[in-house]
Amino acid sequence: MPEIMESVAGSQVATRLPSKSYAAMAASENLVRWEFTRRSPRPHDVLVEILYCGVCHTDIHFVRNDLGMSVYPLVPGHEIVGKVTDIGSDVKKFKVGDTVGIGCLVDSCRECDNCKHDLEQYCLNGATYTYSIPDRHGDGITYGGYSNQIVCDEDFVLKVDGKLPLEKVAPLLCAGITTYSPLRNWKIDAGHKVAILGLGGLGHMGVKFAAAFGAEVTVLSTSPSKEADARRLGAHKFVYTKDEEQVKNVQGYFDFILDTVAADHDYNFYLSMLRTKGVMVCVGLPHAPVQVPAASLIFYGRSLEGSLIGGLAQTQEMLDYCAANNITADVEMISISDINKAYERIEKSDVKYRFVIDLATLK
Amino acid sequence: MPEIMESVAGSQVATRLPSKSYAAMAASENLVRWEFTRRSPRPHDVLVEILYCGVCHTDIHFVRNDLGMSVYPLVPGHEIVGKVTDIGSDVKKFKVGDTVGIGCLVDSCRECDNCKHDLEQYCLNGATYTYSIPDRHGDGITYGGYSNQIVCDEDFVLKVDGKLPLEKVAPLLCAGITTYSPLRNWKIDAGHKVAILGLGGLGHMGVKFAAAFGAEVTVLSTSPSKEADARRLGAHKFVYTKDEEQVKNVQGYFDFILDTVAADHDYNFYLSMLRTKGVMVCVGLPHAPVQVPAASLIFYGRSLEGSLIGGLAQTQEMLDYCAANNITADVEMISISDINKAYERIEKSDVKYRFVIDLATLK
Repeated sequence: MPEIMESVAGSQVATRLPSKSYAAMAASENLVRWEFTRRSPRPHDVLVEILYCGVCHTDIHFVRNDLGMSVYPLVPGHEIVGKVTDIGSDVKKFKVGDTVGIGCLVDSCRECDNCKHDLEQYCLNGATYTYSIPDRHGDGITYGGYSNQIVCDEDFVLKVDGKLPLEKVAPLLCAGITTYSPLRNWKIDAGHKVAILGLGGLGHMGVKFAAAFGAEVTVLSTSPSKEADARRLGAHKFVYTKDEEQVKNVQGYFDFILDTVAADHDYNFYLSMLRTKGVMVCVGLPHAPVQVPAASLIFYGRSLEGSLIGGLAQTQEMLDYCAANNITADVEMISISDINKAYERIEKSDVKYRFVIDLATLK
Repeated sequence: MPEIMESVAGSQVATRLPSKSYAAMAASENLVRWEFTRRSPRPHDVLVEILYCGVCHTDIHFVRNDLGMSVYPLVPGHEIVGKVTDIGSDVKKFKVGDTVGIGCLVDSCRECDNCKHDLEQYCLNGATYTYSIPDRHGDGITYGGYSNQIVCDEDFVLKVDGKLPLEKVAPLLCAGITTYSPLRNWKIDAGHKVAILGLGGLGHMGVKFAAAFGAEVTVLSTSPSKEADARRLGAHKFVYTKDEEQVKNVQGYFDFILDTVAADHDYNFYLSMLRTKGVMVCVGLPHAPVQVPAASLIFYGRSLEGSLIGGLAQTQEMLDYCAANNITADVEMISISDINKAYERIEKSDVKYRFVIDLATLK
């Protein structure tokens, strides 16, 4: 049991914190209520009462052990917003009462070249993800945000503007930064024609950010019914990708395609919509490999790039940008007891655009 | 017959120029001596006596109609060095006697966004390649450099420093610019660890350029026998890619991989050698599609890019750089009557590193 592997500070054994959650006890099972303990704050830790937690498709992949790396009991959730309720003795950045966020990362080595360059998500010694990953200090595995509280090193806690609707801020911690990061890294602005492929949790944030940055934004979708919503979210154009004429009109058209699709799809079909030296950034993780003719890259000088969430500094920058520009996610609130139904709906793409758990329902 | 489709200037039909060549008359046949005519110089044309022409693997693909776009008779050759022997009335850039080069392009639309940005190789209206492509002014199809002379618009003719050994300059016009361009576009310098994949006509130039730019250069090869030559060409390291230990040592190691391999190969095997946010640029064109797990791109923020030769301005920059830094190709001279034997040897990778035809043998 991870919760008895408590670390010892000096000769004094800290008291553990009884905590509530919804957890998967095995890959084939529904999530159930589960009580466990978390560590008391270490000197640099912050204790956070969780108010809201977004439901990311990755949560489902981990619950189902699709990546083969899940450890059970598994408490998912990495789109966390809450209030600081206690701090360790050396905490400098936060005080009790602060509104904060925690995303996909709760720790990293801090010493490797990537960590030193604000790319903790690519930590060369292995980043500590928010759930189902061994804690770096021997405190068992990490447990995520489908829980009443969480303990996290202050360096991995983000400041959240308390004036925003916090339930709509929660999804920014994964869906937000995952789309913000590549758009910012490529300096997308009014000079760019951007396509967002897939209008789900990630895609709808991609539309909001690309539009906010001034780009001409097109949503590419296999569902013509999504057009009205795409435009409401900020898209200027919509391409129904089963209509040959519409597809023909965007051959070689886009500077940048943000591919948020996690289902298997034909990458080359979308690459053909990139102009010379255009870039397609993939943030969705299909099972089947990416497959593209070399000619489609070479004869147009195109590139295909992967991008993983974002580092802590950029995540803070994104949250600050959202606060300044009043950008949040479109969410559907759920009670934590409805989480299994929510998973079924996510798997049918029946959500606009993110379920968010109200942790008050876990009381 | 293309040569009777002469354009008419005013009411006066220009005299055509009887020319000699080696040509493929059909996809399944050896190259044979073929006489034809070229147009007389138009006002902006330069007539060039060809001294040397490199033999590129692409020549073989076109002779064999591997891309399905060959027009016969087909005169290959796009690594051309020669002397100006006549100029059109409006030519400004060249005079009779100048040493010049002609590469893969002899014309483009000059008006599209790519042409206006010195990316004529990506001309949106279709670049005019040096052979087997319709001339933009109705003069049949283009005939390449396995010939005693060629007529070309001055804007697609490059200045060559006459002090260099010209037979070694010829391969710079394709193999040179194809490798120089991506290394320069990515600003490769002493801060980079570069791998060159494949040590053939392109790869050997990639090694020379990357080393000249100050990078730490590693050759990746399936032939351990190539190590001595790789080091002679300027490589600092050599990885025999069938040795697991050597491969393990370069996981996540390179900033940049230049993939010059035109045979089918496992892209992901090499991607794994890229550091976080590393780039692999493909210039070789295998039959099988590129196939990589999205995770290999996403979890390391890597990218895979295509690159096609280079524009005219960059090709001139490359030639000037080579003249200033005494960089040329390693070549094996052949008589044009040996071209079919040379093709057989190229297909067995039996050449160090470029065959170059001495056109004096076509007299």
